[in-house]
Amino acid sequence: MMFKECFDNVRNNVPLVHNITNYVTVNDVANVILACGASPIMSDEPEDVTEITAICGGLNINIGTLNKQTIAGMDAAAKVAKDLGHPILLDPVGAGASSLRTNTAIHIMDTYKPTCIRGNISEIKTLAKGSGSTRGVDADAADAVPPETLDKAVAFVKELAAKANAIIAVTGAIDLVADKDKCYCIYNGRPEMGKITGTGCQLSGMPTAFLVANPDTTSEAAAAAVCAMGYAGEVGVAALKDGEGNSTYRNRIIDAIYNMSGDELEKGAKYEIK
Amino acid sequence: MMFKECFDNVRNNVPLVHNITNYVTVNDVANVILACGASPIMSDEPEDVTEITAICGGLNINIGTLNKQTIAGMDAAAKVAKDLGHPILLDPVGAGASSLRTNTAIHIMDTYKPTCIRGNISEIKTLAKGSGSTRGVDADAADAVPPETLDKAVAFVKELAAKANAIIAVTGAIDLVADKDKCYCIYNGRPEMGKITGTGCQLSGMPTAFLVANPDTTSEAAAAAVCAMGYAGEVGVAALKDGEGNSTYRNRIIDAIYNMSGDELEKGAKYEIK
Amino acid sequence: MMFKECFDNVRNNVPLVHNITNYVTVNDVANVILACGASPIMSDEPEDVTEITAICGGLNINIGTLNKQTIAGMDAAAKVAKDLGHPILLDPVGAGASSLRTNTAIHIMDTYKPTCIRGNISEIKTLAKGSGSTRGVDADAADAVPPETLDKAVAFVKELAAKANAIIAVTGAIDLVADKDKCYCIYNGRPEMGKITGTGCQLSGMPTAFLVANPDTTSEAAAAAVCAMGYAGEVGVAALKDGEGNSTYRNRIIDAIYNMSGDELEKGAKYEIK
Repeated sequence: MMFKECFDNVRNNVPLVHNITNYVTVNDVANVILACGASPIMSDEPEDVTEITAICGGLNINIGTLNKQTIAGMDAAAKVAKDLGHPILLDPVGAGASSLRTNTAIHIMDTYKPTCIRGNISEIKTLAKGSGSTRGVDADAADAVPPETLDKAVAFVKELAAKANAIIAVTGAIDLVADKDKCYCIYNGRPEMGKITGTGCQLSGMPTAFLVANPDTTSEAAAAAVCAMGYAGEVGVAALKDGEGNSTYRNRIIDAIYNMSGDELEKGAKYEIK
Repeated sequence: MMFKECFDNVRNNVPLVHNITNYVTVNDVANVILACGASPIMSDEPEDVTEITAICGGLNINIGTLNKQTIAGMDAAAKVAKDLGHPILLDPVGAGASSLRTNTAIHIMDTYKPTCIRGNISEIKTLAKGSGSTRGVDADAADAVPPETLDKAVAFVKELAAKANAIIAVTGAIDLVADKDKCYCIYNGRPEMGKITGTGCQLSGMPTAFLVANPDTTSEAAAAAVCAMGYAGEVGVAALKDGEGNSTYRNRIIDAIYNMSGDELEKGAKYEIK
Repeated sequence: MMFKECFDNVRNNVPLVHNITNYVTVNDVANVILACGASPIMSDEPEDVTEITAICGGLNINIGTLNKQTIAGMDAAAKVAKDLGHPILLDPVGAGASSLRTNTAIHIMDTYKPTCIRGNISEIKTLAKGSGSTRGVDADAADAVPPETLDKAVAFVKELAAKANAIIAVTGAIDLVADKDKCYCIYNGRPEMGKITGTGCQLSGMPTAFLVANPDTTSEAAAAAVCAMGYAGEVGVAALKDGEGNSTYRNRIIDAIYNMSGDELEKGAKYEIK
């Protein structure tokens, strides 16, 4: 299947996505989910989440501002989503920066077997180490993922994908989206995206919608969503006028998703499969 | 009184509005309250809310991301607001989607007798059922509120308004704002507003300011606020440029409220009273 | 040192700032910290904050939507920051409006000795009273800080700065940034900034980054940050087009910080030292 069809399926099916996410970027996550054609619901109270997640098609767990209560909510929601066979995406924000974050992310990964784990290289390496896959982690060269170390990084994410039985998405200068057999190396995106809070969180919310709408081609769907976000970053930069900066850029990226067609994504996507 | 005067009273009196609202759209709620000329305060800690609500003129309760602690905060604040005779607006986000949401909304409705309840048709029907008014609820035709079933929907909201002794505002393709005697059927608004998170929440924050500033004409004030929001949606769409989407549209709607005069609202309002 | 150098140091050092701040304006705080060249982290769970604050260079505490759990988080984080000698900035949002806010702010001020306290005149007077410095507080004329009472206000903030051994920043029509010896009286800014939620909170997040990057000239650094915010407000107003209002203005202010050079700040800053 092509990226165009993955995107069209989101627009046609309007998947409902349950998000337990941080309060910093939650509004942007909701708006980008709407922009791509899906529908967001937020709920983190343990007593509330089980019913909410049951009426949704998928679950996006982002630990960016986790606390004891929302961790209980993540557990309760993930259990229901797993039982119902809904896709779960885990965004381990800050794994490696504190024990609570590392342990929570590893607990969710090991217990609920997310369909997809999306983070930066440092977070993903923390999870790999936690789950016992240390070979890739030792490869510190994977941190920057420059072209010359790309093959090493690709091997690392494929290995973790096999071990965790999940799609692993490492976003950075080059984005890697891998299952155990293949890795999409994605060259879309702009460095200015790092000057906006929340582009990473949006890269978890939107892919969850793509996973729900494309249950039989989840790896390609995740890659399509990551390409769409990067391509929106390119379109958004091109639209910036004199004097505009990161705050306006934030709006332009979401606007670009809103206006992007499946055909445009197909044409704008820059990737190779390794 | 005319809508113009309702709006002018907000600008002239600068009411202070206490909001216990969800963390998804709270920033937009604060900015739209400022845009219409009022002033927002947010506080949800049970120990804090009673003093905060006492210095405000009205209370906006939105259960969009409720949790056990904020529910306790809603209770404490609503009790004080009721004792002081301040208007309370209830936005029962997701009532019907989970027991906790349904029960919390009904508890607040039954215990604190809000001045106004604002939701979509599904949420309002859930409350009507919960409070024993089942006739309207059976009228599933009321869901879409197309012109041909408008009279049925009007009868339903008037009945609930009488039963709850509250202004009932059902927002959708056609917005209905009713007390027991009359119903404003409002034709302002744009379908694109549904592609932004938070237009509904803003439709609860801003009307609370209108209720505070117009204590003797609360039904008209609520209708004026709903018209203002819909008209801002029309102005905002007209201002959109090529390539702009839902994120920029969000800004343009709040901007339109900011720049709207009472006269412009009076001219732009499209409604009939049934 | 000049304001230019203070700003350049932020851009060159990319300080990491730990924020425990309210959920209303947290996204804008994150984006303005990124816009000025620093990097934000948010965490408020007591178990999480100590490790997070240890990897950061400074701590911004804003009590705008405090609750029992986040107060515990503030305590835990501030203790670590103090032990490590990191600068702490306290934004006592709503001190004076409720006992919980007043007591929390005074507790943090007295226990952890923040490097800088930033608030409006009413909040700062509440803290002054709470800490026993009542003379300035009695000077109600200080509320408006018009030119004719400026000297009185300057004396008040210097006295509190000496007593609290902190930089005191009072923002309003004229901004005052004082240590015990000198007070920057800052004439940048626009009244329209008061029609956006969060300009105050940004005025706490960004200065924290400036304090971290300029450990030997903290008073000047805080003043530079306050000037930068006010000057961005001026640039942002000049960029507003017909029909744009407070929501777009919010973006333009952050954009202006993003595009501002140290030289431009130096030229745009309008202040005198008293």
